Amino acid sequence: MVKKAACMGFGIVGTGVAEMLAAGKVCLRTESEEIPVELKYILDVREFPDHPLGDKVIHDIDIILNDPEVYVVTECIGGKTIAYDFVKRCLKAGKHVCTCNKEMIADRGLELLALAKENNVMLLFEASVGGGIPLLRPLRTCLDGNDFIEIRGIINGTTNYILNEMLTKGTAFADALAEAQALGYAEKNPAADVEGIDACRKICILADLAYGFNVPTEIVSTEGITNITVEDTKAAASLGYAVKLLGRTLRGEDGKVYAYVAPHFVPNSNVLAGINGVMNAVSIIGDYVNEVVLAGPGAGRRPTASAVVGDIIDTVRLADGKAYPSWGEFRPEEWGDIDNLKSRRYVAFKGNASVPAQGEFDGVSYVITDSIDNKALSALFEGAEIIASYRILD
Amino acid sequence: MVKKAACMGFGIVGTGVAEMLAAGKVCLRTESEEIPVELKYILDVREFPDHPLGDKVIHDIDIILNDPEVYVVTECIGGKTIAYDFVKRCLKAGKHVCTCNKEMIADRGLELLALAKENNVMLLFEASVGGGIPLLRPLRTCLDGNDFIEIRGIINGTTNYILNEMLTKGTAFADALAEAQALGYAEKNPAADVEGIDACRKICILADLAYGFNVPTEIVSTEGITNITVEDTKAAASLGYAVKLLGRTLRGEDGKVYAYVAPHFVPNSNVLAGINGVMNAVSIIGDYVNEVVLAGPGAGRRPTASAVVGDIIDTVRLADGKAYPSWGEFRPEEWGDIDNLKSRRYVAFKGNASVPAQGEFDGVSYVITDSIDNKALSALFEGAEIIASYRILD
Repeated sequence: MVKKAACMGFGIVGTGVAEMLAAGKVCLRTESEEIPVELKYILDVREFPDHPLGDKVIHDIDIILNDPEVYVVTECIGGKTIAYDFVKRCLKAGKHVCTCNKEMIADRGLELLALAKENNVMLLFEASVGGGIPLLRPLRTCLDGNDFIEIRGIINGTTNYILNEMLTKGTAFADALAEAQALGYAEKNPAADVEGIDACRKICILADLAYGFNVPTEIVSTEGITNITVEDTKAAASLGYAVKLLGRTLRGEDGKVYAYVAPHFVPNSNVLAGINGVMNAVSIIGDYVNEVVLAGPGAGRRPTASAVVGDIIDTVRLADGKAYPSWGEFRPEEWGDIDNLKSRRYVAFKGNASVPAQGEFDGVSYVITDSIDNKALSALFEGAEIIASYRILD
Repeated sequence: MVKKAACMGFGIVGTGVAEMLAAGKVCLRTESEEIPVELKYILDVREFPDHPLGDKVIHDIDIILNDPEVYVVTECIGGKTIAYDFVKRCLKAGKHVCTCNKEMIADRGLELLALAKENNVMLLFEASVGGGIPLLRPLRTCLDGNDFIEIRGIINGTTNYILNEMLTKGTAFADALAEAQALGYAEKNPAADVEGIDACRKICILADLAYGFNVPTEIVSTEGITNITVEDTKAAASLGYAVKLLGRTLRGEDGKVYAYVAPHFVPNSNVLAGINGVMNAVSIIGDYVNEVVLAGPGAGRRPTASAVVGDIIDTVRLADGKAYPSWGEFRPEEWGDIDNLKSRRYVAFKGNASVPAQGEFDGVSYVITDSIDNKALSALFEGAEIIASYRILD
């Protein structure tokens, strides 16, 4: 049976979510049926007359609240004023809500989750931390048997980009910030990013979930990157470290839960030191799992929409009790023969190939080919003896 | 209400699962209640008279099947003969099953999942691919709105360890294998690992879930690492690549689904090139999320048990419909003041500190301290001016 969705907020992420819904990409597939979720409304204060989805735009939240067909509502408005009010009203109206709003969840999550439960609906927020990276759900499902020793991560891409520019190009903080703004990585008012406020909200949500109690943002020590100098990044590099803004929450030796945001010297041998540009990465250390690292795009229209949509599909799965993993019978018509799969290849060979050798190792010639299939590979080396052949990962 | 579990198989992973259950670590915590899962039986052919859990050991599957108290059964026997028979009987008896058995799921998953559905119970298998890494559940929940362009991964730690030894120490394959066996990383009969069979099973499970149809292991082109020479790894390194055994499943340009296992030349700039030792890492490339990388321990008693236990808890959550994320009110008694959190520090300073400078950058002295709290930090630099201070991540 088809479900209907309404999108609140048609900004960067909201556009991505609405597009995925409109493209028919939001669908719970079970062994016996498909349950598609279709876009019914887009709520925004603005008009979008030239947008292909412009005819879905409405301005009155009551249309959503009063439409019994609306099964799930996404919230990509941001902030904790209008968004908070609208989400409360949706939950009270018995609508499931999926949000990417870290500020609202960090500051009002405790209350809103209780309200969702009271009204027997889901409030999911995977996209609020780490953008497209699967993070909150794995933490509370796959890793749920662990006592969490620590969660540490690069959870703000803007600051990570700026720090990387400072380190690799010697650009001063102010110039690197201006560059990030020009590229659209930083907002005109960059305070939430560069002062660590965004990272603070995210580490609070991780701490809430990992340790089971509400950590108010205002008690979390939060230091941004505004005081970091190029000299500091150079000193760090000479000593074998990268300077990274980390959010950390951990169980201290005293048994207490700590959470804070601050720039750190991270040893180059640590995987977090190698996370550059706008990438995010979070390391979760548990008493049984040891350490897992989840990395990917921490922001952006399509990755963040991917996470919101994952929540929509999971809402259908969980609320409708169709939680079984499954797949269907083999489909020969969809299966590809490996001989047809093209790759660039490294080929070491003796004798005469139809391509000139590009060099040799230990007296054996080699070639790195264009992207070719196995038939073309055989043809190229028909007159030669292949000593070694490897596909190259692009 | 307490749930009861039975563990089938008391080998490496089974021991870890039983220990977690016995330690009271398996518990679904919701806002309003805690549902612990307790260990009732351990099924194994052997006796364990000296093991603390030895009194739980039974030898007759019927005891499990006929005990209405047994809510969930874990299967860590391995293989697809006895394990397959026992799992079928458990599902038919209405018991939920959580397994780490990749061979059984790759070869019999289609049938067993249908049987689970028919009997209205869960069959979960997160631990079957990537050990402790959250992988299968994130793929089918958080990332479910994506069309999967490719999944590529280092999904066998034994071969990854051997390749790394060959590359970094110039050890020949046979010697590196013997070393891996001596360290317990490779089995006495290493065929399943070094011939790529283990990786083949895992990439089949990933392909099944990503593309929605059953991919039989026997049609998947599978090449192991037995033909790789030290010269190949050296040639790769000179050209800027690492040799890695990859499992790959992807949608080709022809729209077909491909899956295979083969050694690849992986560019050093690719995150997979830096995954060394027995670590596993899987890169998932989707049309919306772009690329996420999930990395961690792909095997081992405690990490794999962590994944099985995550499945047990999720079984309770899903089967009992308690899917709401939640956390409780702030707990001041559990909260730690950041001033008390010890770290090693990098401190750049001018003037006289109570510790001698360890060097200087641009005329400014620096010290890397022992692990100290903020009070100790202030005391150390009481007579000095701190120019920069960073916590160091250990």
